Amino acid sequence: MSTESRLQKLTAEIIQADLDAYIVSAVHHVTYLSGFTGDSSYLLVTRDRAILLSDDRFAIQIQDECPHLEVQIRGHDRSTPQLLGEVLSKLGVRKIGIEAAYMPVAGLEKFQELVPTATFVPRSGWIESLRAIKDASEILTIRRAISIAEEAFTNFRNHIQPQDSEFDLVNRMEFAIRWAGGTKSAFEIIAGVGERSALPHCPPSSKKLEEADFLLMDWGASYEGYKSDLTRVIKSPYANSARYRMIENRLHDLYKMVSEAQARAAAKLRPGVHVREVDIAARGYLAEQGYSREFNHGLGHGFGLEIHEAPQIRSNSEDVLQANMVVTLEPGVYLQGFAGVRMEDDFLITPDGAERLSSLPRDWAFFEG
Amino acid sequence: MSTESRLQKLTAEIIQADLDAYIVSAVHHVTYLSGFTGDSSYLLVTRDRAILLSDDRFAIQIQDECPHLEVQIRGHDRSTPQLLGEVLSKLGVRKIGIEAAYMPVAGLEKFQELVPTATFVPRSGWIESLRAIKDASEILTIRRAISIAEEAFTNFRNHIQPQDSEFDLVNRMEFAIRWAGGTKSAFEIIAGVGERSALPHCPPSSKKLEEADFLLMDWGASYEGYKSDLTRVIKSPYANSARYRMIENRLHDLYKMVSEAQARAAAKLRPGVHVREVDIAARGYLAEQGYSREFNHGLGHGFGLEIHEAPQIRSNSEDVLQANMVVTLEPGVYLQGFAGVRMEDDFLITPDGAERLSSLPRDWAFFEG
Repeated sequence: MSTESRLQKLTAEIIQADLDAYIVSAVHHVTYLSGFTGDSSYLLVTRDRAILLSDDRFAIQIQDECPHLEVQIRGHDRSTPQLLGEVLSKLGVRKIGIEAAYMPVAGLEKFQELVPTATFVPRSGWIESLRAIKDASEILTIRRAISIAEEAFTNFRNHIQPQDSEFDLVNRMEFAIRWAGGTKSAFEIIAGVGERSALPHCPPSSKKLEEADFLLMDWGASYEGYKSDLTRVIKSPYANSARYRMIENRLHDLYKMVSEAQARAAAKLRPGVHVREVDIAARGYLAEQGYSREFNHGLGHGFGLEIHEAPQIRSNSEDVLQANMVVTLEPGVYLQGFAGVRMEDDFLITPDGAERLSSLPRDWAFFEG
Repeated sequence: MSTESRLQKLTAEIIQADLDAYIVSAVHHVTYLSGFTGDSSYLLVTRDRAILLSDDRFAIQIQDECPHLEVQIRGHDRSTPQLLGEVLSKLGVRKIGIEAAYMPVAGLEKFQELVPTATFVPRSGWIESLRAIKDASEILTIRRAISIAEEAFTNFRNHIQPQDSEFDLVNRMEFAIRWAGGTKSAFEIIAGVGERSALPHCPPSSKKLEEADFLLMDWGASYEGYKSDLTRVIKSPYANSARYRMIENRLHDLYKMVSEAQARAAAKLRPGVHVREVDIAARGYLAEQGYSREFNHGLGHGFGLEIHEAPQIRSNSEDVLQANMVVTLEPGVYLQGFAGVRMEDDFLITPDGAERLSSLPRDWAFFEG
């Protein structure tokens, strides 16, 4: 799907909602609809035009990235909202939709002041819904972002050292992602050594790998703007055998259980299925095993230009799966003071089920290296 | 200044504005007032309490980072805004300020629906104004972020290779920042080779260093949440002499001129000075030299927890310098198709002038290496 056909779909929504125009302000949405990858810009979409409003810093990049788009560049003596206000006045549009989920309250107040003759209508979800369904070129790019993350993991695993702190482990993974061809990590990499693996969003610390025998890595690659998202728990290649043998059985049980929870959820993935059913397949199984409170976050989420986007795979979500959605499944069990085990893979919803896009092994042999 | 005294100052504003409470929603503002470095959380400040509202993922991190703060953690079956709505209702607060510059329109609508008995009052700038004046511990951290960026640059310069593309140069600098002790780069590093240095915000390309004889680097380090921001244009250590000699004089002139523009602006830095006067000191000088259109962005900006924060040093800003502000000065001249030369350093406003915090040389000898 080209940016042109994305714009056509948005225009259809604008017309159906009886609006004259729509202000696209979220940076990912401007990129999605125009191809322009810079920030601090607006895309104004009317019933018959699309105008990108930006500043001098981006003028040449815009020529490069979206040569066919109508563009207005402001000087440095005024703000981009001021320029947009002038364009709105000049075009004479009256009913203007705004991205309510992104535009700050002060932004709306500013536009109301700049164009007092217009009515601004809060509207959300149009572009999010378009983005939830990936087109062929997006899926190809996401496949590449995943394979970069997997190549990075192999390289990472081959190079980690007992003296590495969580800071070092994060840096090693960041470097590995970039060496493998990624632009950068898709989000703040999580490296949890030993019991710190039980913190679902632990910031890196000076805890060293040799202080425990296992670690949790949650990482992903950015590639041409698209993301990937994976998690594995692995044994240190330099495990202290005596200490490790004491925890081996308990870790093995958790690992198998989380892997099974993910497999049960993955088996539910199919167009038309409510995400609640997918969530309960994993959550119910873990609860049966005695771990209901210990899985304390949603099961998964869509990803693409952002690391979290529609659909949300949670018990309190109304989302329904559709073909060409791309989602993660990341069940986890967190035992404070002992260990957290999470396993995260990436899936494409296909017309009759799902394809697992990530290919890292999920068995105990892989954990043990 | 401790988080307690920051909260006291905010409480004084709340009382003076005749509000019952204020919802802090910007992630940097939550960190600034609480010490909590995670995201997806709110800080509710009433006339006599401060409550951090977050979710399970962050429970332990919060205990760690702000053990004395009152905390409410939601379960995974509801959203943090829902929890905040309940707390607001229970406290019976009626006039509630919101961060208009950050809270999305949809967020405000949600709170109005959750707490229909309350009035929400858009308020901006309180925390931004507090943050613009750095305390001693912030200045110490910023000094460290700057010295990390400078150490990284030395390492970077010693290791660049003729075959390096802009992608490679960005990666080398990212690695150098982390090796020097930085958490990561403070923003997307800019590496512009040859004429691409004239793009003020050029995304990295496959252009190789050996295709030109000079490059522009705009980089900074994050350290304990605080940033630094520097720019230098340097000659390639492997410059092709014949090609380089052709442009040498013109580059030299631009370099001296931009350095002089920065020095003239730096001489104006002092409490009580309008930022316009600082901007015009650089801009006026460049205009006298025949480059008015070629310096097409603001002169500088405050930085700290964010890379751009108050004050803005631009011709259309009303900001006035105060002691303990920390700002960059980054004049530049951009000649499309030839070269862009920008020089950026970091300054602390002192009681009677300013201290240049960054120590990289600014003379032509440094450019030539």
